[in-house]
Amino acid sequence: MGLIGGSIGMASCKQRLAEKVVGIVRRESAIDEVKEHYAADNVTMDIEEGVSDADHVIIATPISAIEELTSRAKPALKKECIFSDVASVKATIVDRLESILRSTCFYVGVHPMAGSEKQGIAIADAGLFKNAICIITPTENSDKNAIDRVAEFWQRLGSIVRYLSPRDHDEKIAMVSHLPHIAASAVINALSSNSKEPIETIGFAGPAFKDVTRISASSPDMWVEICMANRDAVLRAVKSYNLEIANFIEMLQNRDAKGLRKLFQKAKDLKEASSR
Amino acid sequence: MGLIGGSIGMASCKQRLAEKVVGIVRRESAIDEVKEHYAADNVTMDIEEGVSDADHVIIATPISAIEELTSRAKPALKKECIFSDVASVKATIVDRLESILRSTCFYVGVHPMAGSEKQGIAIADAGLFKNAICIITPTENSDKNAIDRVAEFWQRLGSIVRYLSPRDHDEKIAMVSHLPHIAASAVINALSSNSKEPIETIGFAGPAFKDVTRISASSPDMWVEICMANRDAVLRAVKSYNLEIANFIEMLQNRDAKGLRKLFQKAKDLKEASSR
Repeated sequence: MGLIGGSIGMASCKQRLAEKVVGIVRRESAIDEVKEHYAADNVTMDIEEGVSDADHVIIATPISAIEELTSRAKPALKKECIFSDVASVKATIVDRLESILRSTCFYVGVHPMAGSEKQGIAIADAGLFKNAICIITPTENSDKNAIDRVAEFWQRLGSIVRYLSPRDHDEKIAMVSHLPHIAASAVINALSSNSKEPIETIGFAGPAFKDVTRISASSPDMWVEICMANRDAVLRAVKSYNLEIANFIEMLQNRDAKGLRKLFQKAKDLKEASSR
Repeated sequence: MGLIGGSIGMASCKQRLAEKVVGIVRRESAIDEVKEHYAADNVTMDIEEGVSDADHVIIATPISAIEELTSRAKPALKKECIFSDVASVKATIVDRLESILRSTCFYVGVHPMAGSEKQGIAIADAGLFKNAICIITPTENSDKNAIDRVAEFWQRLGSIVRYLSPRDHDEKIAMVSHLPHIAASAVINALSSNSKEPIETIGFAGPAFKDVTRISASSPDMWVEICMANRDAVLRAVKSYNLEIANFIEMLQNRDAKGLRKLFQKAKDLKEASSR
């Protein structure tokens, strides 16, 4: 139970979305944290014990741990159990979890578009998923009833549920989530390379800088895992971004005010059209 | 009186920072808007009339209009008047305004690091400059007393006053303001080039995307003027950014998780160090 798992637990307890909410944690010290946040009714470090009576298991761990922990949970899962994940990358994860859980229980892939640049249950929040997009990624192997129950669960958490195939999800999320993370981190890295006293330089920044770079403080481990798991789509997105940056360089180089204006106008038009 | 001028006026009226606040507007329809927002005690469309009795004139127009309007105001300025601007680019503006106003009155360059992706007095706010950095850019020609009075004025608006030479300002602000604008606009433009239905794709985005791209809705005209007026420093900043993006591409291309981790870690470290 970190930021995502903890927030799901808190909302589930608060709204009584389950008869009993069981939190599974890795560290002993996390047991008290989960209780303090009222993120679960019961807390355990034993995976099998934690999932043994569950109607709905949600695995909210780093991408690198999902397969192994799912395999460890598998023997204890009830046959009618719904199992879902919340990973930011879907094609590979959905493929692997479907194959691990096939003929064990009902698996449904989920990606709630909510989070923070910070981590851990300390900043968990029962309202984290309110008005957030939650993408469900069913496949031909998914059980219709399980999809509906997962959708209903996330709607009760306040989310707006949308559906995409795992591959479509990865392509689109590379553009609207993975690319922005790299773009933000690269702004900071450019400052670091270009400025003799980058911290002092950032001290002059206004709110635009803070907004653009906020997510550069996110966990490097998590973002490496995401980028590697969705490598092809992320690479395409960043390459396409590189061409757009090259367009700005060209216009500046040529002192082409008209061309520069077109680039800014194109961005403004789409940004405004998509905010309506 | 747009967003910046209107906000200065509102705060000045609210806190009674002047015996009389006079707003100068271009459109007749803006007269009522200024009155509704209580952004000035008197409003006029006549520049000479507006500045004739002023102890402190603040010009808050697009960069392209600053020189001409300053020249038009010049004959009516009192000898002891302090004249300042709020432009996002300083070296060229300070140079030109110093030469226009030399032996007329006391000019001081200012750049408040506050604003919005939206424009106009409709969103003006007396609290806009609260806790914002306000950069004053004195030169060897600046009057010490005038600098102090301008600093005091911005401190009363709630800003944190810092000093930079005009050239230093332009170099640093290219990195922390002008580059982030281009980076944000390019994220949207990449989406536009790469996605068949970009509006639908943006519909799947979470808060990170919204934060990174917020400022891409800013005025293209304003940003073209800023980029052209600070062209050399902006070009250096964007070229350096291009190298950082190329680093991410290289690591993704080589499936170099370690190298990718270093890039994310470098950004996180500086972001966190500068947020303390």
